[in-house]
Amino acid sequence: MIVRDYREVPAVPVEGKPGVAMRVVISEGDGAPSFIMRVFELQPDAQTFLHTHWQEHEVFVLAGKGAVRSETGETTIEAGSVVFVAPNESHQFVNRGEEVLRFVCLIPADRHRKD
Amino acid sequence: MIVRDYREVPAVPVEGKPGVAMRVVISEGDGAPSFIMRVFELQPDAQTFLHTHWQEHEVFVLAGKGAVRSETGETTIEAGSVVFVAPNESHQFVNRGEEVLRFVCLIPADRHRKD
Repeated sequence: MIVRDYREVPAVPVEGKPGVAMRVVISEGDGAPSFIMRVFELQPDAQTFLHTHWQEHEVFVLAGKGAVRSETGETTIEAGSVVFVAPNESHQFVNRGEEVLRFVCLIPADRHRKD
Repeated sequence: MIVRDYREVPAVPVEGKPGVAMRVVISEGDGAPSFIMRVFELQPDAQTFLHTHWQEHEVFVLAGKGAVRSETGETTIEAGSVVFVAPNESHQFVNRGEEVLRFVCLIPADRHRKD
């Protein structure tokens, strides 16, 4: 069993996206066999890429206000919002508030990649 | 893409464990292919079973104060704590605070069961 505070894990800036940082709080290196937990932090007005990939996302918003966008529009998110992004579905997270937008985001482990 | 507030999902009492309820906020029924997100709420002094199973857990504590126990002892948890429980590792969550202990807890989907 591993117990840690998420703040103990370094927040690594996401290349090419100013104001976006990621903490990998449970990884394959911890022995996680199936899926990985990350915590994202977006500063005000920051956003992630609008992109698609094989991994699904399961997200729980911890703090802040923002939106999740796809090719068909956007939906408001805030603390307590849950987001499921299916494999190969386009998505982008945007901070529209005045505080940090912080969310937990899980993806399958690389070993489950099928392509 | 699915976006919902976790509070929209009914909190279902866990049988045999007074004061423990679970909300399944992202399920296989939503199309989740690999893993499932639940939110647990333990009232003061409530606890989950000390048990083991094939599924690993990845936990993020949202609110409250408590402990996670195994056969070898216990560790304090509170908002911001992250817990990884390996497959077949014994574990029990206990609320030791005066408020609700609330945490996100993810498990692999049933289709990944190997035994």
